[in-house]
Amino acid sequence: MAAENDAEARLAYVREFAASSPYYKAMGMSIATMVVGNVSLRIEIQASQLNADGIVHGGVLPAIADGAMGNALRTLYGQSAQVLTAEVHLHYLRPVSGGAVIAEGKVVRSGRRLSFGEVEIREESRGKIVAKGSGLFVIERKTN
Amino acid sequence: MAAENDAEARLAYVREFAASSPYYKAMGMSIATMVVGNVSLRIEIQASQLNADGIVHGGVLPAIADGAMGNALRTLYGQSAQVLTAEVHLHYLRPVSGGAVIAEGKVVRSGRRLSFGEVEIREESRGKIVAKGSGLFVIERKTN
Amino acid sequence: MAAENDAEARLAYVREFAASSPYYKAMGMSIATMVVGNVSLRIEIQASQLNADGIVHGGVLPAIADGAMGNALRTLYGQSAQVLTAEVHLHYLRPVSGGAVIAEGKVVRSGRRLSFGEVEIREESRGKIVAKGSGLFVIERKTN
Amino acid sequence: MAAENDAEARLAYVREFAASSPYYKAMGMSIATMVVGNVSLRIEIQASQLNADGIVHGGVLPAIADGAMGNALRTLYGQSAQVLTAEVHLHYLRPVSGGAVIAEGKVVRSGRRLSFGEVEIREESRGKIVAKGSGLFVIERKTN
Repeated sequence: MAAENDAEARLAYVREFAASSPYYKAMGMSIATMVVGNVSLRIEIQASQLNADGIVHGGVLPAIADGAMGNALRTLYGQSAQVLTAEVHLHYLRPVSGGAVIAEGKVVRSGRRLSFGEVEIREESRGKIVAKGSGLFVIERKTN
Repeated sequence: MAAENDAEARLAYVREFAASSPYYKAMGMSIATMVVGNVSLRIEIQASQLNADGIVHGGVLPAIADGAMGNALRTLYGQSAQVLTAEVHLHYLRPVSGGAVIAEGKVVRSGRRLSFGEVEIREESRGKIVAKGSGLFVIERKTN
Repeated sequence: MAAENDAEARLAYVREFAASSPYYKAMGMSIATMVVGNVSLRIEIQASQLNADGIVHGGVLPAIADGAMGNALRTLYGQSAQVLTAEVHLHYLRPVSGGAVIAEGKVVRSGRRLSFGEVEIREESRGKIVAKGSGLFVIERKTN
Repeated sequence: MAAENDAEARLAYVREFAASSPYYKAMGMSIATMVVGNVSLRIEIQASQLNADGIVHGGVLPAIADGAMGNALRTLYGQSAQVLTAEVHLHYLRPVSGGAVIAEGKVVRSGRRLSFGEVEIREESRGKIVAKGSGLFVIERKTN
């Protein structure tokens, strides 16, 4: 019971973290689905996220990738820890030029101080994978 | 002589590419310095690029990293090729919470179809390295 | 029919490629299972693959990772192409100090010139994941 | 004086670590040069390290890359800590088919628990870069 309540509190923390983040608003990013250890972010590609050649700028997908993995980790720790990105690696499998994309981030291994996540980004309309990646995150426990 | 003119034309193309990119405007990104094979981008961190915990969102640095490496490559090809990101890897060495950062991208190896770049990101005020990374880029030659 | 025969010929090519590779012999590496697009390599950790502190040297797992992904790609191309590693990235999730490990490599996206694979390495006795990684490979078509 | 003595002791520890490693012997790897924070390893490519197509197997270079970065870190900590690889990323820039290669590993940033290194691998005869990479390492302090 306590653990379930804890999970609810942690998910509420992540929902609030995303809702209050200036960057999420600026990017048009929001949480699509969320369970403990697994968070999907959605972004509707805006004209301002395109490069001069009409392709989504290479920096947009890492943003949503990092956010999805970071939040998947935050569902484990809630407000008891700060999650800091140590490295992000993204492979671009298909160019994106519009529409919406969904990034599903999941926790693969969580340690005391270092955690490892993976992310898969799909375009929403046909479900095709557009990018895959991974990341390492440092977990800074907050002292009360 | 022809080659020098070519270089001038390619640098002008990159200047125009960055100036006309909606994403550069939205991010507050601009070219700081540029020579053939080496481009530095500057970004003045905006409040909208912060996470809910006051640290720059993990997606901001990959954006400037990708842009700096991609443009370093564009100085080699100009309008004769499209530069597509195949993968980007970034290590975050120090958290950033404000000020300006400079990303210096350089071409390490350029092939017929695949090129490799590196990037170093420093905070402007003290010059400390905040992130280092690398990327592979596919070069799509434009047919005339 | 022709396609099935082709698949058989490609699998036979990979079996021969692994069996005749001096490096596979030296490392004690062999093919455990193989279907088109997916190859598992097995390695029985030898005393000579340990570091001075009793942990498997950090270079052993990339060897089996690269081999599993490269061979997964070779099942697509057989002798019609040479598969060259462009980059390999490996995350070490648990230290290994002995026993056998199995690396399962799979093709995620195969293009005309550039292909992307993923790999998961498990220790054999309990099935725990010890490492995960990815790689990009250049496909050089052989002209007849 | 104490610090200099310390440095000597740490370098001696690394020399002994490499000399007593079964894997170094099996691979034909040895320390070429070493100063605090920077270690070069040399490997003379053996026939047993080639793939069936005459190119050095993709697992050989990560081995020497990991070793060079790990030892560069060991010169900072000596016997007071265990250095464990958390991730290694290597870009292959030119295929190698024989001769000797030198991997120069250096410490870019060392933290209390997590350290970051880079590596550059050159073929010895002409000095051409054949691979570049990076890695994150977990530092486990030994308690006395």
